[in-house]
Amino acid sequence: MKFCSNCGKAVLKEVPPGDNRPRYVCKFCPMIHYQNPRIIVGVLPTYDNSILLCERDIQPRKGFWTLPAGFLENGESTLDGAIRECKEESLATVSDATLYAIYDIPHIEQVYIFYRARMEKPYFSKTTESSDVQLFTEEDIPWEQLAFPVVAEMLTSFFNDRKCGQYDVKYKQINKCWKRPKAAHNHA
Amino acid sequence: MKFCSNCGKAVLKEVPPGDNRPRYVCKFCPMIHYQNPRIIVGVLPTYDNSILLCERDIQPRKGFWTLPAGFLENGESTLDGAIRECKEESLATVSDATLYAIYDIPHIEQVYIFYRARMEKPYFSKTTESSDVQLFTEEDIPWEQLAFPVVAEMLTSFFNDRKCGQYDVKYKQINKCWKRPKAAHNHA
Repeated sequence: MKFCSNCGKAVLKEVPPGDNRPRYVCKFCPMIHYQNPRIIVGVLPTYDNSILLCERDIQPRKGFWTLPAGFLENGESTLDGAIRECKEESLATVSDATLYAIYDIPHIEQVYIFYRARMEKPYFSKTTESSDVQLFTEEDIPWEQLAFPVVAEMLTSFFNDRKCGQYDVKYKQINKCWKRPKAAHNHA
Repeated sequence: MKFCSNCGKAVLKEVPPGDNRPRYVCKFCPMIHYQNPRIIVGVLPTYDNSILLCERDIQPRKGFWTLPAGFLENGESTLDGAIRECKEESLATVSDATLYAIYDIPHIEQVYIFYRARMEKPYFSKTTESSDVQLFTEEDIPWEQLAFPVVAEMLTSFFNDRKCGQYDVKYKQINKCWKRPKAAHNHA
């Protein structure tokens, strides 16, 4: 941020009175421009024994596989946003969506909120955002071609939960030094 | 938003190519300025049989009671942010924080993420943000002086959960027409 979005004058970065963090401040308006983490909402879509994944056709990580997810929009709930992203990226319609995980990724200023949801029919398709969309059984998950650590984390948790039949809501922080937890598929 | 925060030129509001929502767009950079919901993180602090509430000394809803909560900052996790806000607003230190609720409030473009946490000692104080800080038993909660619907929702859920001894993670959307669910204190 270099200019005030309200008046167009140059902003300074300084700690405002009564605050304890540097902010972008406009001395003309005057206005303080706060910047905050963004929310990514997504779905873990299941059909029978399989999970739906999308091959990204956009950067970053084009060509790698991901769960359908994207930025939450103003005016929508996290649940509605997750279902919308699933539709946009895979054309799949899901039902019975249930809150499943929150992943904090502070070093990239993002918070992921994931829902588990069920596909009633195996209808899906590639889209402008996904060069391929496929159902994968646990044995076939392309672990080395997953787009982001959060996807591997989510899938590993899900397969572990499925073995126990208990799907508690997850909370975890994913740091730069993240390593994939013991992969469920190695212990199947 | 009237001006581009990158170059200071005037922005337009239009649907970018390949998008389906109007965005603030700068034709000079060129740059698209996305706007997304913000995250409020907070704590439901417990000490023995009581809950810690803060009387707001800032607008909006100055003079009304709330759970300690505030905007998540860049670079911190939702858990760390919740604990920080609790400290800033009440001087209380909490431990054993556990994810407890996500509340979507789409009409004000906010998502609340709350943790349950325990105060080991009844140490707290008014602060620059809170004109008063007090422990309340369920019977003494000032229901009519609560600052926001989300606070009444959270407290009602907690007291209902406490009766069952089971604290599942909550997810709920709070709309403009929100009404307080059957208040636990009426049925105690």
